[in-house]
Amino acid sequence: MRKWTYAFGGGRADGRADMRDLLGGKGANLAEMANLGLPVPPGFTVTTEACTHYYDHDRHLPDELKPQVEEALAEVGRIVGRTFGDAARPLLVSVRSGSRASMPGMMDTVLNLGLNDATVEALAQEADRRFAYDSYRRFIQMYGDVVLGLDHHLFESKLSAHKDQRGYLNDTDMQGDDWVEIVDAFKAIVADELGHGFPQDPQEQLWGAIGAVFASWMNQRAITYRRLNNIPADWGTAVNVQAMVFGNMGGNSATGVAFTRNPSTGEKALYGEFLVNAQGEDVVAGIRTPQDLTEEARLASGSDKPSLQAAMPAVFDEFADICTRLEAHYREMQDLEFTVENGKLWMLQARSGKRTAKAAIRIAVDMVREGMISADDAVLRIDPEALNQLLHPTIAPHATRDTIGRGLPASPGAASGEIVFTADQAEEQKAKGYPVILVRVETSPEDIHGMHAAEGILTTRGGMTSHAAVVARGMGKPCVSGAGSLRVDYDAGTLTADGRTFKAGETITIDGSTGEVLAGAVEMQQPELSDEFAQLMTWADERRRLDVRANAETSPDARTARSFGAEGIGLCRTEHMFFDGDRIQAVREMILAEDETHRRRALAKLLPMQRADFVALFEIMRGLPVTIRLLDPPLHEFLPKASEIAEVAEAMGADAARLRERAQALQEVNPMLGHRGCRLAVSYPEIAEVQVRAILEAALEVGAKGGEAVEPEIMVPLVSSRTELEAVSEVIERTARAIEAERGSVPAYTVGTMIELPRAAVAAADIAARAEFFSFGTNDLTQTAFGISRDDAGAFMGHYVASGILPADPFVTIDQDGVGMLVRMAAEQGRRARADLKLGICGEHGGDPASIMFCERIGLDYVSCSPYRVPIARLAAAHASLLTRSSPELSPATPDGLPTLA
Amino acid sequence: MRKWTYAFGGGRADGRADMRDLLGGKGANLAEMANLGLPVPPGFTVTTEACTHYYDHDRHLPDELKPQVEEALAEVGRIVGRTFGDAARPLLVSVRSGSRASMPGMMDTVLNLGLNDATVEALAQEADRRFAYDSYRRFIQMYGDVVLGLDHHLFESKLSAHKDQRGYLNDTDMQGDDWVEIVDAFKAIVADELGHGFPQDPQEQLWGAIGAVFASWMNQRAITYRRLNNIPADWGTAVNVQAMVFGNMGGNSATGVAFTRNPSTGEKALYGEFLVNAQGEDVVAGIRTPQDLTEEARLASGSDKPSLQAAMPAVFDEFADICTRLEAHYREMQDLEFTVENGKLWMLQARSGKRTAKAAIRIAVDMVREGMISADDAVLRIDPEALNQLLHPTIAPHATRDTIGRGLPASPGAASGEIVFTADQAEEQKAKGYPVILVRVETSPEDIHGMHAAEGILTTRGGMTSHAAVVARGMGKPCVSGAGSLRVDYDAGTLTADGRTFKAGETITIDGSTGEVLAGAVEMQQPELSDEFAQLMTWADERRRLDVRANAETSPDARTARSFGAEGIGLCRTEHMFFDGDRIQAVREMILAEDETHRRRALAKLLPMQRADFVALFEIMRGLPVTIRLLDPPLHEFLPKASEIAEVAEAMGADAARLRERAQALQEVNPMLGHRGCRLAVSYPEIAEVQVRAILEAALEVGAKGGEAVEPEIMVPLVSSRTELEAVSEVIERTARAIEAERGSVPAYTVGTMIELPRAAVAAADIAARAEFFSFGTNDLTQTAFGISRDDAGAFMGHYVASGILPADPFVTIDQDGVGMLVRMAAEQGRRARADLKLGICGEHGGDPASIMFCERIGLDYVSCSPYRVPIARLAAAHASLLTRSSPELSPATPDGLPTLA
Repeated sequence: MRKWTYAFGGGRADGRADMRDLLGGKGANLAEMANLGLPVPPGFTVTTEACTHYYDHDRHLPDELKPQVEEALAEVGRIVGRTFGDAARPLLVSVRSGSRASMPGMMDTVLNLGLNDATVEALAQEADRRFAYDSYRRFIQMYGDVVLGLDHHLFESKLSAHKDQRGYLNDTDMQGDDWVEIVDAFKAIVADELGHGFPQDPQEQLWGAIGAVFASWMNQRAITYRRLNNIPADWGTAVNVQAMVFGNMGGNSATGVAFTRNPSTGEKALYGEFLVNAQGEDVVAGIRTPQDLTEEARLASGSDKPSLQAAMPAVFDEFADICTRLEAHYREMQDLEFTVENGKLWMLQARSGKRTAKAAIRIAVDMVREGMISADDAVLRIDPEALNQLLHPTIAPHATRDTIGRGLPASPGAASGEIVFTADQAEEQKAKGYPVILVRVETSPEDIHGMHAAEGILTTRGGMTSHAAVVARGMGKPCVSGAGSLRVDYDAGTLTADGRTFKAGETITIDGSTGEVLAGAVEMQQPELSDEFAQLMTWADERRRLDVRANAETSPDARTARSFGAEGIGLCRTEHMFFDGDRIQAVREMILAEDETHRRRALAKLLPMQRADFVALFEIMRGLPVTIRLLDPPLHEFLPKASEIAEVAEAMGADAARLRERAQALQEVNPMLGHRGCRLAVSYPEIAEVQVRAILEAALEVGAKGGEAVEPEIMVPLVSSRTELEAVSEVIERTARAIEAERGSVPAYTVGTMIELPRAAVAAADIAARAEFFSFGTNDLTQTAFGISRDDAGAFMGHYVASGILPADPFVTIDQDGVGMLVRMAAEQGRRARADLKLGICGEHGGDPASIMFCERIGLDYVSCSPYRVPIARLAAAHASLLTRSSPELSPATPDGLPTLA
Repeated sequence: MRKWTYAFGGGRADGRADMRDLLGGKGANLAEMANLGLPVPPGFTVTTEACTHYYDHDRHLPDELKPQVEEALAEVGRIVGRTFGDAARPLLVSVRSGSRASMPGMMDTVLNLGLNDATVEALAQEADRRFAYDSYRRFIQMYGDVVLGLDHHLFESKLSAHKDQRGYLNDTDMQGDDWVEIVDAFKAIVADELGHGFPQDPQEQLWGAIGAVFASWMNQRAITYRRLNNIPADWGTAVNVQAMVFGNMGGNSATGVAFTRNPSTGEKALYGEFLVNAQGEDVVAGIRTPQDLTEEARLASGSDKPSLQAAMPAVFDEFADICTRLEAHYREMQDLEFTVENGKLWMLQARSGKRTAKAAIRIAVDMVREGMISADDAVLRIDPEALNQLLHPTIAPHATRDTIGRGLPASPGAASGEIVFTADQAEEQKAKGYPVILVRVETSPEDIHGMHAAEGILTTRGGMTSHAAVVARGMGKPCVSGAGSLRVDYDAGTLTADGRTFKAGETITIDGSTGEVLAGAVEMQQPELSDEFAQLMTWADERRRLDVRANAETSPDARTARSFGAEGIGLCRTEHMFFDGDRIQAVREMILAEDETHRRRALAKLLPMQRADFVALFEIMRGLPVTIRLLDPPLHEFLPKASEIAEVAEAMGADAARLRERAQALQEVNPMLGHRGCRLAVSYPEIAEVQVRAILEAALEVGAKGGEAVEPEIMVPLVSSRTELEAVSEVIERTARAIEAERGSVPAYTVGTMIELPRAAVAAADIAARAEFFSFGTNDLTQTAFGISRDDAGAFMGHYVASGILPADPFVTIDQDGVGMLVRMAAEQGRRARADLKLGICGEHGGDPASIMFCERIGLDYVSCSPYRVPIARLAAAHASLLTRSSPELSPATPDGLPTLA
């Protein structure tokens, strides 16, 4: 006979913590506490198998279940000295669902089950009438709602009407008789609505509740939640039936919550609060001020209400002892719920406690020092993404938020400043000492100087990988992008939000971690990196296989990257150097050049500037590799907008008509798929030539000063075939030979390519014949593999993710089954063609923990990300190494070991 | 000892026609003719191995070569009764290069080698002085140019000066003494330029010429030609040394060219011309009017000069007999060169003759009827692409072409008409009865009505798969696209070409087969489809495995397609039905709708129109499958341009500001990668719902009339994942169920998807779980795999193809190694997941013969192309079947037999 019920309580249990699949999370947890001998109200769990049986057999429960439940219930009664349905000492129980994974959207709890017109009187005898009838009416309301399917408003409005009639303000004003009346009224509601009375038979109540839990597994909310979270429908849910305990039975009863360590700071000190003569929901409701648990905490808070330590010393000692035991048992900070019923402590819940990133790091490092966990454990316990909280200023937790709109959390951290609408205004106001927020419909490369000047960036269009988002993340500045409910009117100089209008100069705050836009300045909290943080990162570095580099081109960014532990530059976008100061003019002259001769003349002006940029970068990155990408964007990105042509033409002494004509000729229908990347180097080899010269001459210059040399890696973008790479490689080699002839030597360098087009991924073996490294440009690879422009994805991406068509925004987390498959194919084929091919990733995914795990699995050599994400990537890489090591089936793929597509 | 020379002549030869790799094309051919016992001037071939030896050994010839050449030369002398270098009866030879593949750009011929100051006198004795010295000066000039590297202008200007001095007009005015003087002058030029005299030693002359042939294999022109044509450098070239024969030795000598059948009509009749006392170049030069070969031809042409048949009856009979033998031997129409020297016929060349498409078909069909070749051979002999000549009007071969510019040959055929610059003008002028050419910078879907009205379309921007090109091919109208040297000024209403300006109303002609744009009207030649054409297509259909469908949406197109033999519609682009008449207004109302309710209201107006469209289409295509693609382009394509908003808003009674706002909101940075395809159906399921309803109701209506039913195939575009297809499939199924509920039945239909994104190709196994067919949209797949927008490719694609970075424009011929690999992967994986998955291709490649060969090899079920390309695709599919059958290594891939990527 199959075992359908697992008992717990009375110092033992049938189940264990590792039986989560069968008992659900809650059931397994209660069993574990009971096994530890902790005072858990006794009860039993109906297994998830009963649920699957229920659905496999047309919603019929197994025949064997009934006797097993009756037996389990009798045992619970024996432990507490009560009997289910007994009119003298009735056993009351709670019924709760509990699946393997936490699943909001399923049936709520039913408390006080077993109460009826008879047993309520017994309860009144034991405690008091007011308590008994209040409990009864709560039961009718909950049961009516979740089991009988009656709208809870029906009950609530009746209660409100009663209070209004009596002139009561709060439920605490209700007397015993009031509750008796309410119970009658509630029973009348049930009879009216259903045509039969509220079930008086406790057995009927119980089976009704068990059936409701199982039925709720297939309600629409649960189905949707499972679909969104990839939870299989055949997991089923368990049902937990447990004896009721009451914290509201008088002055010797209490209820409380606690954390075994401070969840905010991580300090090792019992932390929590409780209320005398109260139920759990009263603590949460916040109507009465809760009391501290420890004397130390009471003194610190200056409270005049006694601590649990002082008020119930025996209970406190027992509780503190349980805390220590649970922490030692689970080797993790615990979030606990307890109830004291007539001086007896009952543990209702123990689970891992949520905490801030700062607390998480302190707790993990402390636990290693206390010998509770290993350094591996400590590293694995910190969510890499959570480090974001530590690396940027954030809005103070208790600050008031006057939210005026919401966009995408495009770059973390928060900032306040005056609204400016143009990059030039940003610079001007910043120069005068005013912090500013640059507010634009969208940004373009011409806005870079304004983004540098601003504290944060807000756009009303564009996604997580729009220009604003990418550049802001690179700069480590907060950014909210695509705040579609806000309207920017450049002409009027206003930002309109939900009927409120803000002018240039007014102050707003953006929270790039949540996507919120707030009116006015808001209190901030500055980041501080603790010793524990440093310790954790050291442990992480000792454990990771993947190198972590940064995407950077400016000296400040490179310095930030190195200080955050970057092991080189994985992507230096040379075009970002083309917008500053005089350069943009030389770049425009180059674009307007009539022929190669004039183009070379303009390029000659750029050479010393680019060389100086590289000298600076190479100095900062001494001893490390620096990957420099040749010019990538289409040339029209460097030309002024239509409205600015006349002005720009005058400034550069060019003919406006010619400038306009050239701009029109360069215009593209789909610039993402246009004349860019290595196609520029093929069309205008002299551009690549000057860039290569600047790189190699800079490396020579830095090398000549002695000390560690850099390793320049010249990267050819947007390659689709070997022949294309060959054409550009010839230009690079020719230039290197020319420098060698002129100077007598040329620094060591390598030539590689971005793999950012599906065709390149497919032809990787062929391309690897000419490439010394591949850097996966997964931004563009995602755009082309999906055929989705990240600038235009806003129109549908939100719905795609929300409805589960895509599990995540593929621009944020790599799409392993599609884009990832292309990356894996290319890595595998590339390595076969060239065993020492260096493999890295430099798309936005290089800083995304899930994507880094993928990079580890397919055996890449490094990831490269924004400077501010370097610590996150270091930690994520350590996770990836530890997890692949512990799960052999996930271990880094060798070329031969990879599953093939065939 | 290796054999380095292969002799021919005197009724035998060492080589054979199938020794082309060793002897080159010319050498193998001469050997074959000699083996047949034909009168070939004797000679020998120095093998291609000698050439590779030359390059493998630092440009030294093999030691064994010299004695072998001397021996071969002596044998030639024995045959003709002469001796090389002999002052009495000197042997003169020609030296020609000859590689495996025809290679213009290599060394030209050297004739009359062996002449020197002594032997020229012997020649003068044999023939006459004038002839001898003319021959000698020709030799010095040719040898000086191609062996000694002297500029031929040096010689030509000397000859011109001489003629001026004497007052001669033509070379025929030159007398013997004149040529003697010229010979002296030419020798002086050589001595001046080189510091030594013209080589008098025939051996030195010979080795100089042989060395020059081998050296020319590595000249820049040859290297470039090989790179562009994928000819390996290690093939090398052969050298042919052959005894000279002279057609200019007097009235009993002649030279001529002939085709064994009429190369223009295919008629079985000897066709050609000759000149008495002339050399080959005189026939080509056209100074003297050549004479006909046969009496019949002379009578037909009305010539008063005797035919060869009349003038030299014995020679003619021998020649006619040789023609018959050669045709029978090669089983192919021959292009022949011959010379008569003092009454003796010599055959100089026999090769397959070039011919028009019409002639090719007639000849092939006739030869089958004559029992010379099999029907398989006949099918394989016709280049499918050549059928284009037959299906469209073309410019008459002898018409004068006043070319004013050139673009891409985007849609074949030629047309003349008045210039119009807008679609509306096109309609107006057409309505008045004037043929027009629509001239645009580029076209958009709004121009469709103008394209319908126009005889042809000319654009100055856009590639082979730009909107104009694709639509024009679909309509079977000539189109020249991307004519970048032309400028269109809409405001001025002018087209400017190379300094000439054409106004609206002036007539131009476009040749969509060549890309030429011509001033004025030009004489045309109308297509006519012969009985032989019908016979050939029947044979082709009997031999092909692939089905051929058409891309069509209008009734005329569908009718054309069916008349051309289409076996269904492979792609009906429903959006093309959205631009006509009232529809565009309903479409715009739908786009402007505030919510689903308003959108449904607008869609309700479209339903009867779409249904009527499908009814018409289904009637035409009874008994055949019709694949209908749901709405694909981004909605902004249906909105008016900025300049037309006010007008359109008024016409539709909408608010202009609202229309402008909506248009701005829908604007996209990269529309190709935007909110389109199935993303529209996911965002607005009601659009798909109405389209599906129109399809199914139309099928019901047509089915109700009895007779053969259509097989509607509903195709979901731009799918990237199974989940996306699922979301749209649910809408389709829901709609079908609704129709079934309303009408009691629903017609049979299938649901499938386009595979046009790299991610879909990678995830094909998963997608096939929900798709009953895949149609490869290789246009978009090429765009996304390469990351190249076809609208913007013009800036670099020409250079990429010209420089060999790409072997061909991948939008014209499928890129087998990249895009093709994705298609193959998807086909293979799809079939594994669903064995009966129907596979087709509906991109432009569906009509390209090379791509069709690829489709055959990977085992697709059908190709779909423009209606006018259906016959081409049918023939190409037959080729593909025959070729894969005859070459097992190319046979259609089975899922298990495919090479895998791993």
